[in-house]
This record gives sequence, C-alpha cells and structure tokens, in this order.
Amino acid sequence: MKLKIIVPIISSIFNKSIAKEISNYNCQGIEFDIENLDYGTESIECEYDEALVIPDILNKAKKAEEEGFDGVVVDCFGDPGVRAAREVLNIPVVGGFEPSMLLGAGLGDRLGIVTVLPTVLPMLEGAAKRIGLDSKVVCFRYVDIPVLDLGNISKLEDALYAQSIEAIEKDNAHVIILGCTGMMGMGKKLHNRLIEESYDVPVIDPFFAAIKLIEVYVAMDLKHSRRTYMKPRDKARKWWK
Amino acid sequence: MKLKIIVPIISSIFNKSIAKEISNYNCQGIEFDIENLDYGTESIECEYDEALVIPDILNKAKKAEEEGFDGVVVDCFGDPGVRAAREVLNIPVVGGFEPSMLLGAGLGDRLGIVTVLPTVLPMLEGAAKRIGLDSKVVCFRYVDIPVLDLGNISKLEDALYAQSIEAIEKDNAHVIILGCTGMMGMGKKLHNRLIEESYDVPVIDPFFAAIKLIEVYVAMDLKHSRRTYMKPRDKARKWWK
Amino acid sequence: MKLKIIVPIISSIFNKSIAKEISNYNCQGIEFDIENLDYGTESIECEYDEALVIPDILNKAKKAEEEGFDGVVVDCFGDPGVRAAREVLNIPVVGGFEPSMLLGAGLGDRLGIVTVLPTVLPMLEGAAKRIGLDSKVVCFRYVDIPVLDLGNISKLEDALYAQSIEAIEKDNAHVIILGCTGMMGMGKKLHNRLIEESYDVPVIDPFFAAIKLIEVYVAMDLKHSRRTYMKPRDKARKWWK
Amino acid sequence: MKLKIIVPIISSIFNKSIAKEISNYNCQGIEFDIENLDYGTESIECEYDEALVIPDILNKAKKAEEEGFDGVVVDCFGDPGVRAAREVLNIPVVGGFEPSMLLGAGLGDRLGIVTVLPTVLPMLEGAAKRIGLDSKVVCFRYVDIPVLDLGNISKLEDALYAQSIEAIEKDNAHVIILGCTGMMGMGKKLHNRLIEESYDVPVIDPFFAAIKLIEVYVAMDLKHSRRTYMKPRDKARKWWK
Amino acid sequence: MKLKIIVPIISSIFNKSIAKEISNYNCQGIEFDIENLDYGTESIECEYDEALVIPDILNKAKKAEEEGFDGVVVDCFGDPGVRAAREVLNIPVVGGFEPSMLLGAGLGDRLGIVTVLPTVLPMLEGAAKRIGLDSKVVCFRYVDIPVLDLGNISKLEDALYAQSIEAIEKDNAHVIILGCTGMMGMGKKLHNRLIEESYDVPVIDPFFAAIKLIEVYVAMDLKHSRRTYMKPRDKARKWWK
Amino acid sequence: MKLKIIVPIISSIFNKSIAKEISNYNCQGIEFDIENLDYGTESIECEYDEALVIPDILNKAKKAEEEGFDGVVVDCFGDPGVRAAREVLNIPVVGGFEPSMLLGAGLGDRLGIVTVLPTVLPMLEGAAKRIGLDSKVVCFRYVDIPVLDLGNISKLEDALYAQSIEAIEKDNAHVIILGCTGMMGMGKKLHNRLIEESYDVPVIDPFFAAIKLIEVYVAMDLKHSRRTYMKPRDKARKWWK
Repeated sequence: MKLKIIVPIISSIFNKSIAKEISNYNCQGIEFDIENLDYGTESIECEYDEALVIPDILNKAKKAEEEGFDGVVVDCFGDPGVRAAREVLNIPVVGGFEPSMLLGAGLGDRLGIVTVLPTVLPMLEGAAKRIGLDSKVVCFRYVDIPVLDLGNISKLEDALYAQSIEAIEKDNAHVIILGCTGMMGMGKKLHNRLIEESYDVPVIDPFFAAIKLIEVYVAMDLKHSRRTYMKPRDKARKWWK
Repeated sequence: MKLKIIVPIISSIFNKSIAKEISNYNCQGIEFDIENLDYGTESIECEYDEALVIPDILNKAKKAEEEGFDGVVVDCFGDPGVRAAREVLNIPVVGGFEPSMLLGAGLGDRLGIVTVLPTVLPMLEGAAKRIGLDSKVVCFRYVDIPVLDLGNISKLEDALYAQSIEAIEKDNAHVIILGCTGMMGMGKKLHNRLIEESYDVPVIDPFFAAIKLIEVYVAMDLKHSRRTYMKPRDKARKWWK
Repeated sequence: MKLKIIVPIISSIFNKSIAKEISNYNCQGIEFDIENLDYGTESIECEYDEALVIPDILNKAKKAEEEGFDGVVVDCFGDPGVRAAREVLNIPVVGGFEPSMLLGAGLGDRLGIVTVLPTVLPMLEGAAKRIGLDSKVVCFRYVDIPVLDLGNISKLEDALYAQSIEAIEKDNAHVIILGCTGMMGMGKKLHNRLIEESYDVPVIDPFFAAIKLIEVYVAMDLKHSRRTYMKPRDKARKWWK
Repeated sequence: MKLKIIVPIISSIFNKSIAKEISNYNCQGIEFDIENLDYGTESIECEYDEALVIPDILNKAKKAEEEGFDGVVVDCFGDPGVRAAREVLNIPVVGGFEPSMLLGAGLGDRLGIVTVLPTVLPMLEGAAKRIGLDSKVVCFRYVDIPVLDLGNISKLEDALYAQSIEAIEKDNAHVIILGCTGMMGMGKKLHNRLIEESYDVPVIDPFFAAIKLIEVYVAMDLKHSRRTYMKPRDKARKWWK
Repeated sequence: MKLKIIVPIISSIFNKSIAKEISNYNCQGIEFDIENLDYGTESIECEYDEALVIPDILNKAKKAEEEGFDGVVVDCFGDPGVRAAREVLNIPVVGGFEPSMLLGAGLGDRLGIVTVLPTVLPMLEGAAKRIGLDSKVVCFRYVDIPVLDLGNISKLEDALYAQSIEAIEKDNAHVIILGCTGMMGMGKKLHNRLIEESYDVPVIDPFFAAIKLIEVYVAMDLKHSRRTYMKPRDKARKWWK
Repeated sequence: MKLKIIVPIISSIFNKSIAKEISNYNCQGIEFDIENLDYGTESIECEYDEALVIPDILNKAKKAEEEGFDGVVVDCFGDPGVRAAREVLNIPVVGGFEPSMLLGAGLGDRLGIVTVLPTVLPMLEGAAKRIGLDSKVVCFRYVDIPVLDLGNISKLEDALYAQSIEAIEKDNAHVIILGCTGMMGMGKKLHNRLIEESYDVPVIDPFFAAIKLIEVYVAMDLKHSRRTYMKPRDKARKWWK
C-alpha cells in the first residue's frame, strides 16, 4: 500500500517530524510519501486560507493517483479540498476532521474539539454540520496558539490539558478530539495526563486517525460513492501550468 | 451605491445579458460593474469547479473593496468564496444561494430547489446545512442542462416548468428556487406559467435575490459579523502575481 | 409603493415617533400610512395579549388591501396575525420577527435575541421553531422593561448594551437582534457602542428590517405562497360590526 | 371533578352529539358542561378562522375558572387559544392536538395524522413543531371534507379508511391520529375496520384523548408550568363588553 | 381493571411502600398485583444492570398477560424491557420514563430530569432520543444517591430540592421530572417546597405517571402499534426453566 | 492482537463460515477466537430476541477480558449488549452497526440499510438515533429472509441486489450498508454486481467493518470513554451459575 501525504502548506518545515510521527504508527507494509504545496499559505487558520490551498491540493492529489498511490491523506484537520478531490479521484481521500469525528463517535456520546485559534471555529462548525455529526459535538475550544507556534511543546501540552479539563468539566465532553493535525503526537501525552488526574476519556489524534482510517478503506477495497462525489464534466479550466 | 458583480468564470459570454438583466431590476442610484475571472473554469458545476474559481474570486473581491465598491455579488448560486471573502472584506458580500433561501423562507414553509445538473446537488445540500435551513428544503431537483447550454431558453423554460410541477405535486414544495444564477430572468416566466395552471407559488430568481438583498444590507448599513467571519491573520500566502 | 403600517395596539402614542423613524430609512417613492387598532391591548407582551390583538389586525389588513396598499407591515416583533393575514390577503404581509431572523441569518452563524420581558420568551421560541431557524438562535435575553416604558431611552440603551455583551460573551452570539419593534432606532446606537468596545457584531432593528424586506418583496413582485397560506373558505364569521 | 367543554364555534349544532359521545367515555364522577362561542366562526379550518375564535375562547375559559371548573377542554384539534388560556388560568387547559400527539407517541414510533382539509395542514405542521414532536409525524393527510359536512358518517368513514391505508402503506405510519375533534366516535370504527384488514395500528380519537388526559392532570393535581405560561401583566385590554 | 406491577429487582423490600403509595392514587376499580424478579439485580443504575433484569421482566410480563391482567407497569424509570415486552404482549406495557416525558411535555416547554446517579445519565439520554423528545430536555441532573439509599427521605428531599433549583435557575427547566421510580411520593413534597419559594413548576412523579397513563390506555382500549412492535417469530429460545 | 468473536446465538452453525470469512480479511498478526452463547436464541430478529441474548453476551465478554483478549466483537448487526459490555470491560467492544455506520458515513452523504426482516427495523431506527447518525440514513429496507435462511446465497444475492437498486433509485441512497452480519461476504459480490450496472456505490459488510474498526482501536490504543460508559457499582446480581 502506498499512501501520499499532502501537507497542504507552502513550507516543508513540518515534514521531518511528520515522517517521524508516522514511524510510530506501526503501519506495516505501507509506503508513505510526503509532499507540500507550490502555491498556498504557510498555515491554514480560516476559510480564506483554506480557499487558497485547495487548488494545489487538488493538483497534488491528481498527481498522486497518476503515480499509482492507493490513497491520499490531506494532512489538515479542516479537510481542505477533500470533497473536491474525491470528485476527481478514484482512490480514497481523507483529511483529519472526518476520520477523527467518526473514530471519536465510536468511543463516546459527547465529543469535545480543542483546536488552535478562534478563527478556525466557524469552519469546523460548518464541517461538523456537513458530516451530520454536529449534534454530538458539545464544544469547540481552542488553545489560542497559531499553527506555526505549535512547536513549543510544553506550552501546547499545558494549554491542551487546560482546555480539555474545561471541555470535560464545563461542557461534559466524553471524548477529546485534537483539532489540528499539527498537534500530532500530543494525543498520547494528553491522554496520559488526563488519566493521571482520573479523567478516563479517549483523545483522538487527527493525523493518526486519518492514517488508520484510510488504511482501513484501502484494506477493505472501499472507495467514496460516486453518487455523492460525481465525476466533474470536461470543460475549460485554467489554473496551473 | 456601487456594486461589484463578479461573474466567477473565465469567460465573458454572459456579461452582456447580465447587464441587460440588471436593467430590469429598477435599482435606482446603484452603479454596477461586472468582472470575470482570469483563472478558474468556464462554468461551476461541482465542488471541484468551485474550488478552482475561489482564489481569483477572492482576488477580485479584495480589489473591489480597494476600488471603493459598497458591496460584492458573486454571481453563482453555490456562493463560492462568499464566506472566505467576508473574512477579508469589510463590505457586504453575497452569492445567489443564501439570499434566495432567506427570501424564499419568508414566503412559504417548504422550499423546492431546481438546479442544472445532478453534480451540483451534494454541494447545495451542504450549503443548505451550512446555513441551517436544510429542514425547510423539500427537494433538490435539476433540469439536466449544463450551465453553458442554458441559452436555449425554450428548452430551459420547459424543463424548469416540468421540474417545478414535480416539485409541487410530488414533493409538496410551496416555493420554487431557481438553482443557478444562469437562469436569470426565468423566474418571472416560470411564475406566469405556473399561475396559468393555477399553481400560485412564488419563484425566486437567485441573481435578482442577491442584488436586492445586498442592496438592503448596504442601505441598512449592515455588514457580516466579525464573530463569524474573523479577520485572517497575517502570514505568507503565495498565489497570484 | 404604498405601505400600510399597522401598529397593533389600541393607542396611538407611538405613531409620531414611528413616522419620524421611518423618515430615517430613506425609502424613496414609498408612501406610508400608520394605523392603530380599535380593539386589542395597549401593548403585546405574551400569547394572551397576542391573541387579543389579532382579529382587529386582520380587519385593518383586509381594509388596507381594499384601499390599494401594496403591502402590510404589522409593527410588532412577534408577527401577530401575519400568517392568518397572508391567508386572506393577496399582498405581502410581514411583522418584525421573520424579517429580522432572515436578514440576521445572512450576517452571521449564531443569533442572539434581546427582547423586553421574560413573558415574551416562550412566544418567541415558538416563532423561531415555526420558521425553522431555531437552531441558529443561541439565546433569548430580555432587558426587563415593559413595552410602555421603552421611552426611557438611556435606561433602555444601557440595558440593551448589558444584555448584548452577555449574549456575545456568555452565549457566543454573533448577531444581535432587537426583540421588540418598540426598540426602533436603538440598533444604530447599540451597534456604535458595541463597536467602540471592539465587539464588531451587527445589530438588527426589527422595524427597519420589516420595512426593507417588504420593500424587496414588493419590488420583486413576490408574494407568499398559496400552498402555505391557502385561501380561507367562505363561512359564517361573526366578529366586528 | 367539573370540566368545561368549550366548543369553539358560534353554533351549537354539535353539542348534542358531543354530550352523547362523552357518555361513552365512562368518566365516573366527572360533570361536564358544554359551551359555544358568541363571537367567532362556524368552523375552524385555517389560521384565519383560528385567530377569530381565540378571544372568545379566552373569555369562556376565564369564566369557567371563575365558576369553579377544574379544567377546560377546547374542543378543537388545532388547540386554539390553549397556550394563551394557560397564561391566564390556574386550572389545566387542553385542546385536541397535544393530548393526541402525546398519547399517540406512547403507542408507536411513527404518527400519521388524517385531518379534514388541506387548509388545515400548515397550522398542524406548525403545532407539531411547537410541541417538539414533528420528527415523529410521518404524514399529514386529509379526507377533503369540510367540518360542517362531517355528519355524513359513511362518507367520512370511507374517506378516513382510505387515507389511513395510504398513511400506513405509503408513509409507513404506525399510529393514526384523527385530525379533527369533529371526527369524534370514528376512532373505534376506523380501528375495527383496520383490524379486519390486518392493520393492527391504534387510532387516536382527539376528543377522547383530550378528556382522558385532562382527567389525568386533574387527578394528579398537575397544572401547566408558570415558567412556560407566565401570568400576563395588568394593562388596558379592550375587547368584549 | 387488573394491573400487574413488576418491580424489576430481586428483592421485595420496596413492595410494601409501593402498595401504600398506590393507595394514594385514588385508582377506583383497579386491582394491583406487585411482583419481583427471580433473576436480575438488586437495583438498576446502568445499562449493565438493565440488561440483566430484562429477561425475567419479560417472563413476568408474559405470565401477567396469561393470568388475565389488563396491563403491565415496569416499575423503573429507564423503561427496561418495555419495548421487548410490547412485541410479545397484547396488553399495554409502560415503564416510568415514557409516561413521565409525555405527561411532562404537556405541561411546559423545557423538561429537567433529576435522577439518582451519574451512571444513569447516558441510558436516559438514549431513552430521550429513542422517544424523540430529546430536544425538550434541558438537563439531566442527579442527586448522587444510590437507589438502595433513597429511603433516607429527608436527605433525598433536600438533594432533590437543591438539584431542582439548579435545573430551574441554571438550565431554565420549566418542568421537573423525577428520574427514578424509587422517588415515589416525593413529587408532591418537592412541588410544595418549590411553590413556597415561588417556583411554580410542575413535578412529575414517574410511578404515578405510569399508573395514570396505563389506566388511560386501558380505559380507551388503546394498545401499542403492531407496526412498531411486531410479533417475534417462533424460534428456539433457551433461557428460563 | 487477540480478538474474541462472540456469535451471540445458541448454535454454532455459522462458526465455520465465520472463520473462513475472517481468513479473507487479511488480518495479519491477529488471533481470533469464536464463541457462541449457552443461553439465548437461535437468531436475533427483534428487540425481544435481543433482550434474551444480552446477559450471556456480557458473560462471554467478561470472560474474554479475563482471558487476555484485546477486544471483543459481538457478531450481530444490532450491537446487542455492546453498550452494557463497555461499562464492565476495559477493552474495546464493537458490534456490527456502529462500525458500519461510521465507515459508511465517511464514504457518502446518504446511507441506505438493507436488512433481513421488517421486525428488525424499529430496533435499527432506534440504534441510528442512539448513535446520532439517523439524519444520514435515507432508508431501512429488508430482503424478507430470516437469518437462518440466509444460507441460500443466490436467493439472498438477488434480493440484496433488488433492494439495493430500490434504495439507490427510489431513496437516493449513496452508500449501501448490509444490515445483518449473517450477510458476511455478500458486500463484495453485491458491489461487483452494482458496478456492472453502473451503480458506483460502496457496500459495507458489517462484520468486515467491525473487525477492521476494532483493529484500528486496538492499534491506536483507544478505548471507550468512561464518561459515557461508567463502571457499574458493586451490588447483588443474580443470574448465571
């Protein structure tokens, strides 16, 4: 199985740690290839950013299929371009949001999402409605740290812990979903810390969820429905060279 | 009042008829300027097309604000780029969907949408959920005519009539919403034909609805909320020259 | 265009200020006529009051159509008699609630309503469900001032400001809707004060919204659907002389 | 226990058969008093009719409480004036709709309503939303017989049977609710006929349901909540002599 | 009328007080028979407990029908086995939850449930969704007292009062539903105490509600729908001797 | 990884074919153990059957954890006992329903379920509501074949195909979910046949979905939330020897 990981930003600064993170996932027999964008933004934190990264995500996704990949992971929690990519591709495509929500929904009745910034919230609320799971989300919280500052791990960990406790105590969240794929690797740490304080709630790491769910779809030979994701008709389209 | 009309395709073939249509709207004291895209597609009929037109819509929208326009109309039923544009602009921005749904919701309890092609439906279903009015939509129907073939008016009119009758009789629709701004001018014709056959239901023409609703917002000095549409943060964004 | 404004109470004390308020709306070419009720109550603050004012509202509305008016505005936030009037009339009829909700829904994802008294809340919750927009309302708040005391402008303004801040901060409202047409003219003031404190949220003035929305319906030659608002059958009805 | 039955029309033609019907209900120890309206309509078949009957219903309901009745039944399926009456009264008040829906909801998952005329449907759809049970209603059907023609029992019975079969077979209704209190006594007949054809579904007779539910509320010493039905404030109200 | 009361636990310690409580309900002409389980648990406080009591509830319910009872009350708020019992029985079967919710829904718009322990909450949330009334429930609260300790009446009364005040003040509950049939008799006491403090909200006692609702169903000759509760097919079933 | 497969019926006739089916799933490094019930029914086709199998499912599930299994699959589409088992176990537990719904929801917007018998439908409708995905289900259909007759493969295949076509054409289903784990292995066959007829929709095989989803949960070290599935308190429970 060959999976293409599109890290949908115009810089490669996260690539090394993404590769390292994947090595912890114990994905036997899967070959991963990480690719960034030529056009777009350096991080995705609102619908404006999202709009700017999607066209080149679609480029890279189409190329991945041509090169024989078995599936495409768009490494961003907001699932940018995922629906559009499914229209043009015949291989599974996932982002971070849908897999996290689906895996989380199987573990508890009330989902709490903790993301990076307030600017992301309306986008995520829309995504939850789009997927029909909005009634299970009890809170959208944020650590107030921009994506590019997530590298300050101890600050991130403290903020995630603080917001998770609020989500559990104030909003009665039963499952915590990390709301940014840039938080990769924090799921385990956060869970351990919560367990120590007797909060026995699962924590979903969205990048991990994305990798495992697409692995399942490929293994089951399942692909998105052409009734939801119909093939675009031929027409003049003018964008990239 | 100066309104920018972004016709979000890479051709200008509709511009003349759009200008003529606007002249029927009796918008006193409003100056209109029509603009097309440099990059994008020749029509918008699926989420893939939509993704490709949005970046240049945002370009044109930002330019419009800089040039002193009071509002921006994205002349497409699917509201492409409208939410992203609101994040970066301080003037009202509307597409065709939201105004049609809102005006239609004030005229009857059950809305029936008749659009161009089946490929458009999932996108519209998502838009209806996003705006929270999905419970009022009783059908999404289509005439099965691509956007670029809408010029065959008599064929379009017959198909719209046939689908509207189905919407009313089979789905118990109380209001008909034309699901493509390329159907401009058909609202009146369709309504007359329905009335002749004793179907006294209103028909919403989405481009007309868009123009009138933004006119209201500008006249009332109302603008989108910065709590829903937060300003994007500064960052590296690499796209157009 | 000739619009009838039915101020649905048995006193004319608000008429002068209503006329003055309308003069601020810059409605060119529209002739307004204000009329009160002969039977009913001196203010509308619960479902009991509402029930008592509706029959004479229907009287006045029918007379307005006979006299050649193009539309009827029932100047009360709760839309008393609006649905019943649409059944008997062939011209557009609006109250304050539906227009405010529809215009507000186009400006932000989460609506906060601030009305006069707690006795009004169940009526408004019902109205929100009736129109299918209840999922967008995040709070129903009140200033605790009876309608007839709204004339104390500075007290009203302070109370509206205080409740709006609560709506924004505690309930995460993105749009404020003033929940009584007797608050006319306060929208602008409240918005300015919120902006000063960096709360950039739109404020909907329901009477202003009503006037502008019916203006749009008349201008677009749109009228309520006869599938939702069917003509009453002839029968013995015994009420007024 | 003394119950006031308000038959909310301006004629007494149904009173005798109502009294006879009640005698079948085996209500031991309950004294019934039937009263009509002085002002209103001769039948209630749309929101316009409903609006016209409510004020005198409120009159009669208040008088009933003053005269020492223990509860008030408004003998109409649409529950006209029930919410308003609860605001002013301290004794239970029910119409036909709410009791039928509640009793029906305890007998099966999917409710089918069969009423008199299409003009009634929007009113009932609104009532179902108001009570929060709209998701359980799978169809609103009608026999197309005006209230004043319901006396043609064999025609009514055939039409009810035909519509109930449609409701069961086409809409998968599990419980049939008769949508007009003028259909009193038909529940048993319709149920027997359905059973003969192996359709083992309960049929709710709304007047019977109303009587039995208010009997329960009085017996349990339960009354509507003052948090939902707040006392109207004192004010000038000008209506009846 | 003969009603079987199944107290679905393996001990008879509550039977005497249940019999005494029923004697307060003034159920003329009804004969009651109380029965416990041979297999199951000593109290029901989670889905695990519930699973263990259901088979013998079904045993006892089938026996009740064979012995000529007219209806079966499963004396537990969670309605354990009620749906399964309806499949096999031809007489009405109720638990405590559904009757309380239905009677409560007729008294106010917003229901607050106060139960025993947090372990019960997910089960009740599921039950509210199952019956389609979850949108009316504004809170699930608990007194944190196990079922077997409910005998400490003054402690229970204080805890119920405290939680009811929270439900009213913080969650804006309009009706209080006692969430355990072991709280029988507390409804009246709690209501009186709330009234004293000017909280005029009804309190539903679930056992009382169950008895009165099944009394109504039997009196109206109504039984659950065979479209929702289809007869189980014959097959090998191996459980009790 | 060691997974326990509980086939929750009192016969072992399916065990051999289940073991064979699993061997097609290419689950490397997973050891499976299949176990039946000592008490229960020979098939599960209604809520009554379901109630009777759950206690011994819980027995077997607890034993599995004691014996060191890493997860438990209850091999039945209705998820019998799954929620109760999660309360008592510290390892993941899944049935067929939840995994199928979650995996299916990631592949298309509208889910169509095709199960065995009409008696199963209310149970599945309840399960869909419980999991909060009911708004995505567009139909519950059945092949009208009892579980024990599913061995007639060609009959089953034809019936599944016929119902799937109805689901797609009449109900506009985008994804087909096989509604009985006894249909294992039919997913691939049905999908191929649909593809041949140009219906490019995914088909979810619930047993396959269950195995792959629990594999993911174990691999990710994720377990159900203790906030949704709280530990049962100690108490007297009398059931099995």
